[in-house]
Amino acid sequence: MKKKIVILPGDGIGTEICEQAVKVLQKTGDLLGYTFDLEHEIAGGACIDKHGIPLQDSTLEKCKHADAVLLGAVGGPKWEGLDFSVRPERALLKLRSELQLYANLRPAIIYSELADASTLKREVLEGADILVIRELTGGIYFGKPRGVKIEDGKRVGFNTLIYNEDEIRRIARTAFEAAMKRRKKVCSVDKANVLESTELWRTVVTEEHKNYPEIELSHMYIDNAVMQVIRNPRQFDTVVTTNMFGDILSDACAMITGSIGMLPSASVGGKNGMYEPVHGSAPDIAGQNIANPLATILSVGMMFKYSFGDNNAYEMIERAVKIAISTHRTKDIMDTGKIETGILSKPRTGRPP
Amino acid sequence: MKKKIVILPGDGIGTEICEQAVKVLQKTGDLLGYTFDLEHEIAGGACIDKHGIPLQDSTLEKCKHADAVLLGAVGGPKWEGLDFSVRPERALLKLRSELQLYANLRPAIIYSELADASTLKREVLEGADILVIRELTGGIYFGKPRGVKIEDGKRVGFNTLIYNEDEIRRIARTAFEAAMKRRKKVCSVDKANVLESTELWRTVVTEEHKNYPEIELSHMYIDNAVMQVIRNPRQFDTVVTTNMFGDILSDACAMITGSIGMLPSASVGGKNGMYEPVHGSAPDIAGQNIANPLATILSVGMMFKYSFGDNNAYEMIERAVKIAISTHRTKDIMDTGKIETGILSKPRTGRPP
Ligand SMILES: CC(C)[C@H](C(=O)O)[C@@H](O)C(=O)O
Ligand SMILES: CC(C)[C@H](C(=O)O)[C@@H](O)C(=O)O
Repeated sequence: MKKKIVILPGDGIGTEICEQAVKVLQKTGDLLGYTFDLEHEIAGGACIDKHGIPLQDSTLEKCKHADAVLLGAVGGPKWEGLDFSVRPERALLKLRSELQLYANLRPAIIYSELADASTLKREVLEGADILVIRELTGGIYFGKPRGVKIEDGKRVGFNTLIYNEDEIRRIARTAFEAAMKRRKKVCSVDKANVLESTELWRTVVTEEHKNYPEIELSHMYIDNAVMQVIRNPRQFDTVVTTNMFGDILSDACAMITGSIGMLPSASVGGKNGMYEPVHGSAPDIAGQNIANPLATILSVGMMFKYSFGDNNAYEMIERAVKIAISTHRTKDIMDTGKIETGILSKPRTGRPP
Repeated sequence: MKKKIVILPGDGIGTEICEQAVKVLQKTGDLLGYTFDLEHEIAGGACIDKHGIPLQDSTLEKCKHADAVLLGAVGGPKWEGLDFSVRPERALLKLRSELQLYANLRPAIIYSELADASTLKREVLEGADILVIRELTGGIYFGKPRGVKIEDGKRVGFNTLIYNEDEIRRIARTAFEAAMKRRKKVCSVDKANVLESTELWRTVVTEEHKNYPEIELSHMYIDNAVMQVIRNPRQFDTVVTTNMFGDILSDACAMITGSIGMLPSASVGGKNGMYEPVHGSAPDIAGQNIANPLATILSVGMMFKYSFGDNNAYEMIERAVKIAISTHRTKDIMDTGKIETGILSKPRTGRPP
């Protein structure tokens, strides 16, 4: 099996963590009979420094024709003063949109060995296992009209939250399909009591549910959902929500695990998939070779699972990670008895946090 | 001092908690020389049942001419099937908008005696004291165009997130003024890396900051802010944010305290103010006389402080509440040794949760 993979290490710790993840990719490939055609490209701040823009068209083209993309992290304080249109984040948003990666899967799993690093009590956390499915190419992230205009001599900023029923239906399907392989529970999160767009969200998710009678579907308002994740994370199995709410809710889920340096993500739905850690570029610890590469390594695992349909490889990598943390740990997950450790030293900047 | 106050008990436990809060209002008034002209009116589900709409114009008029409004809670499963335009929540949104209550103050305080009821570890929580200031009459809650339309035979739902610089400036000022009486730190929460409207938010808050050189201002993205509230709530003093982000973030702050039955809120900025508990109408425990009235009682405290400029009365009520919980407790805060207690039995429906 030959696979073409574009590696975009990005900024900050991105380079270091991708280097380690590529080793795992290669090793897994060797063991299971894959050969990889790897292309390393720059994106984000690194690309701004060299070409003045966060993503080159040629890189985008390569990504479009690859079987999968592995991304480290983009951004950092160095580029924060730049204009909206050319900041590192644009690379990320453009990739998501152009590759049509409408479904972002963010599993939040409690590693029992690391649970003490969470600020939540162990007894609340233990056993929690949430898959957040975030719509990634629509909603207020991409809606038009948008911008800042002058009206009666005053600046007015505006954005548009917009979803059509097809966009909602396909992400609902992704959630129901994913839940079928899990505990068969989907919670759809919206703000249907205030926003008409998410009232349509609720309606269409409910319609699509008819095709999945085995799934138990519930609905929750976003404000309540964030509370419930803090109150009792074990009540959730698969959660599906809009781009903006998913951004917020998946970070809340990630934070309660206490292992943000461990959490991978997959963005799928198009011809191929993009895989990246949930954490950011952590410029404060970059270049010291102390960053935790496990989130990126597990993202490689998700690549095997979702882009190559190879659950075996995924499980191999997951197992290897569990064995590794029983004897070797980076500083962020070293002393899990102390609350601040393992959270404080998590990557923080660029893609916040 | 004569004050005209409209009481809107609303639905569910609203009636019970308002009854107790009015006793405290009267008693405090007697002690400090106020006389009150109280008018009880219906709103929310109760009003739908009687008049088919969640709020009567005559009630709104009375509220406009009162010195302050005390609201219990609105909503419940009974009215959830109704059309968007006539649901109980509309009463709340209409009152906020028509009374021009652009600033919603939600203090999240840790009651040390009750801290064990939180799912967060005591050592993370202790000493946390956050004032969330949420913009309440603008943003995506009220932005137009909005609705659901048919385009190419498909349903499309849309909402508009919009802020002009005046709206941002006045809420920024509210935050800076509030922080001057606190620990002089303001954290402004936005999503300036994705939404132009909140990039303007950040710009204007930064401009307005020039008038408050003593205040330390920081900015945070909403996804990061929710994480940081879970990670280390003590880092925050005053937080200011948009209507939608404030809805989410204030609930996260409320939840970590473990005392959601204790948290009051004030909506101010117009000619008068509206005061209500942060929790909802809790239909599941309504009518049993077991609901915790303290959030509403403390809301009366906020009424004295913000509508009548009487900090003395506010402190009296706060002190009385602290004394009361040392000997008497409702079920929700009774057994604070057990994690689920005091959270599970919190009001849950209507205004979620
Ligand atoms: C960096 C930013 C644009 C991005 C987002 O908001 O989607 C990040 O927060 C994420 O969650 O991937
Ligand atoms: C009931 C609902 C409309 C309301 C809101 O979203 O503002 C509630 O959640 C709140 O926070 O007061």
